[in-house]
Amino acid sequence: MDAISKFVSDNESLFHSELCEMLRFKSISADPTCFDECVKMADWLVAHFLNMGIRAETFDVPGKHPVVFAQTPRILDAPTLLIYGHYDVQPVDTGTSEGEKTNGTADAEVSEKSWRTDPFEPVFKDGLLYARGASDDKGPVFAHIAAAKYWMQAESRPQINVKFFLEGDEEGGNEEVRQFVRDHTDLLSCDYLVLSDTAQFAPGQPSLSCGLRGLAAYELTIHGPNRDLHSGTFGGAVTNPCNALVNLLSALVDEDGRVLVPGFYDEVARLSPEEARQLQILPFDESSFYANLGVASGVGEKDFSVYERLRTRPTFDIHGISAGYQGEGSKTVIPSEASAKFSFRLVPHQSPEKITESLRARLASLLPPGVRMTLDVHSEAKGVAIDTSLPCMKAAARAVEYGFGRSPLFVREGGAVPIVTTFKEALTPNIMLLALSLQTDNIHGPNEHFTMADFYRGIKTAAKLWQELAALDLL
Amino acid sequence: MDAISKFVSDNESLFHSELCEMLRFKSISADPTCFDECVKMADWLVAHFLNMGIRAETFDVPGKHPVVFAQTPRILDAPTLLIYGHYDVQPVDTGTSEGEKTNGTADAEVSEKSWRTDPFEPVFKDGLLYARGASDDKGPVFAHIAAAKYWMQAESRPQINVKFFLEGDEEGGNEEVRQFVRDHTDLLSCDYLVLSDTAQFAPGQPSLSCGLRGLAAYELTIHGPNRDLHSGTFGGAVTNPCNALVNLLSALVDEDGRVLVPGFYDEVARLSPEEARQLQILPFDESSFYANLGVASGVGEKDFSVYERLRTRPTFDIHGISAGYQGEGSKTVIPSEASAKFSFRLVPHQSPEKITESLRARLASLLPPGVRMTLDVHSEAKGVAIDTSLPCMKAAARAVEYGFGRSPLFVREGGAVPIVTTFKEALTPNIMLLALSLQTDNIHGPNEHFTMADFYRGIKTAAKLWQELAALDLL
Repeated sequence: MDAISKFVSDNESLFHSELCEMLRFKSISADPTCFDECVKMADWLVAHFLNMGIRAETFDVPGKHPVVFAQTPRILDAPTLLIYGHYDVQPVDTGTSEGEKTNGTADAEVSEKSWRTDPFEPVFKDGLLYARGASDDKGPVFAHIAAAKYWMQAESRPQINVKFFLEGDEEGGNEEVRQFVRDHTDLLSCDYLVLSDTAQFAPGQPSLSCGLRGLAAYELTIHGPNRDLHSGTFGGAVTNPCNALVNLLSALVDEDGRVLVPGFYDEVARLSPEEARQLQILPFDESSFYANLGVASGVGEKDFSVYERLRTRPTFDIHGISAGYQGEGSKTVIPSEASAKFSFRLVPHQSPEKITESLRARLASLLPPGVRMTLDVHSEAKGVAIDTSLPCMKAAARAVEYGFGRSPLFVREGGAVPIVTTFKEALTPNIMLLALSLQTDNIHGPNEHFTMADFYRGIKTAAKLWQELAALDLL
Repeated sequence: MDAISKFVSDNESLFHSELCEMLRFKSISADPTCFDECVKMADWLVAHFLNMGIRAETFDVPGKHPVVFAQTPRILDAPTLLIYGHYDVQPVDTGTSEGEKTNGTADAEVSEKSWRTDPFEPVFKDGLLYARGASDDKGPVFAHIAAAKYWMQAESRPQINVKFFLEGDEEGGNEEVRQFVRDHTDLLSCDYLVLSDTAQFAPGQPSLSCGLRGLAAYELTIHGPNRDLHSGTFGGAVTNPCNALVNLLSALVDEDGRVLVPGFYDEVARLSPEEARQLQILPFDESSFYANLGVASGVGEKDFSVYERLRTRPTFDIHGISAGYQGEGSKTVIPSEASAKFSFRLVPHQSPEKITESLRARLASLLPPGVRMTLDVHSEAKGVAIDTSLPCMKAAARAVEYGFGRSPLFVREGGAVPIVTTFKEALTPNIMLLALSLQTDNIHGPNEHFTMADFYRGIKTAAKLWQELAALDLL
């Protein structure tokens, strides 16, 4: 066993308990009451870096949570790797009433609708560590931090300059953090950038990303009468904001899930023959994909395979609707207003700004008389394409092979990491998206978990990556 | 001043304080935690009748709140009047977050979105009594109870047999109470029936109803994947229950509010020339109707006036939608399920059962792959037409002229009182809907209130009605 593997193996229980410490912080960025917990999380990270002999500090981001910046001892004439991650997590609720759903039964399907344990008290069971943020993104982030411990402790210093940039607003819209990046290109300057905020292709099949979907996320509110009304007295002559909302939303998409916003598909290119060929050979089983979700099939664009729809096509999804009476029994009210959160997933080359403009015009043209609308933009991020022939991608592939014992697949991601667009524009095109999580980790949902074997493999991969990248420039 | 007017005038403050006692009971039928308050409300009513020398008791209704039955001392060869009302009230929430809506401002429009005072601690201000249930239906119910005091105390006994039948489930679906009526036709047998659960045509313009809309109310739930999913990882290939819900709901109605359920309009008759003529002469001002609601206009069937739409046409309104993430900020989730409460207002001759069947078939035919649906029926009530030439209607008109100093208009109601259908089928066609409330009382909304001058006019009218109906049979 070589030095890296031995070190990781010897320190598994330490890394496990340090990760648990990190998971106990309730750093929900979308929840204003968790602001202090986010600050404490950032301070904990700074202290952790300082303990390893790595210079670290926080920077305030106006209106947002602090970012953590850390930097290993400076080596002249060595390249610089920036490691990015986020310490904030998703809210814990599932959008459904736990009491209604669990209903005294205990079957797997139903229990997946709610947390079985405290989301902020990690529980290790059957090789999995359960906690909010375990997989997205504290576990993967800590794999890179643990790699730093190898280099600082076992090797006394790395052969490469390494910077850490960890933010606390990835889950809730981080435009201000992206502006911080644009405003601090000296501080963050780098030759390579790595992040682990994506999922492996399959268990035991690690992957590196060659593309990310973008995101355009909104909240639409329909404002109607100046108070809630009795539908018996007023129904038939008053525009009901709920009715208007469902009509507007349903006019955004056809029955196959094709988006009806004018110009939406204009910038979407067909896949290159090479990429189409790669997609064909990826071992993706549609029936087990659906079986895992407890459904027989799903709606989607007719001319594309399920895997193509998930990774290479834009989408429209409603995330939540809040309107009128939601209590027990029935209440025949015309609510004063109604709102919905929804988003488009975008693919490379689509412009979120143009889509927002076209969306706004379409909604306005369809808005019935008697109501007003407000459209808030929560997020606008372009999709990203990454060149798999870059030397750093080959270095990352070697690191993965070392850590996982298997070559990575190059895949497109379905999710968005909006800040990657900013990194590409402001810092470097040499961006490696190194997947450590699994798609089945239930990120954003209840009972999020992380496979601890992958955590340790991830630490080895991350540590090896520093060496591989340092060697690159020497070639 | 004659005896009735003098008695009411002398006892105004007593009646005011007794009504306040009644309003303090939190008898929300839709809220299971209020069950005991409903029982206490029923017991208070029984005690109140007993105090007046009127025999009274409660009857249990399986799975529902007790009904109150009371009966004045029996007179042979005199007709019987049944007085119906409900002691339960609507929930108090408005379906919107109070914190968000009031937002520190104090203008009238915004403040109408939330309660300014405790809904269960009546507040008298500028002639109005504010409390949940003040207008719907405790105030009007208590006007009839106060009339009983006149006859039992000032006249020592009425010249007519009077029964009270007061239920506690009108707001939440009272099929069991309607079954109780069918099962107790001997107990409830009557020659005439009066209820006050409708609104006057306008302030100072009392009215009697010649029609009621019916109601078919539902809750539709779309069940999708077995857990909430990340829209980046799964979007594009999974049927999103939110998307499916808005598509189904929007397919139930066209842009003019015309319902798209097959057969929906089959039983809807055009108005008779006489009724159409009556509608023309009713003094209804469309622009002030909309101005009062803070909107410029409203969606509705093109070939009908606003007033016709409100009173003579069926409708479709969504009352609440509950789905996915509704918290602060953004969460890009595909929720596991989504549900909506909605209803059709029906006009006389439409069959709610046939409509439910056709609705279910239409929804099933439109349901996309990858989701299941549940359609719960919350209410099914036919509309009712009442003959204005009935002798009791003329008697009621005289009583209104006595109490209000003005003849009533005969109008159709927009709202449903489902139990009236049952009364007509099981007890008597001689049903008088005597309006005491106003359309502007904000029933079912925040700051519900009742005009106390109408309360006292209503007591006089109710007391006079007993005399007018007793005289009828003597003719």
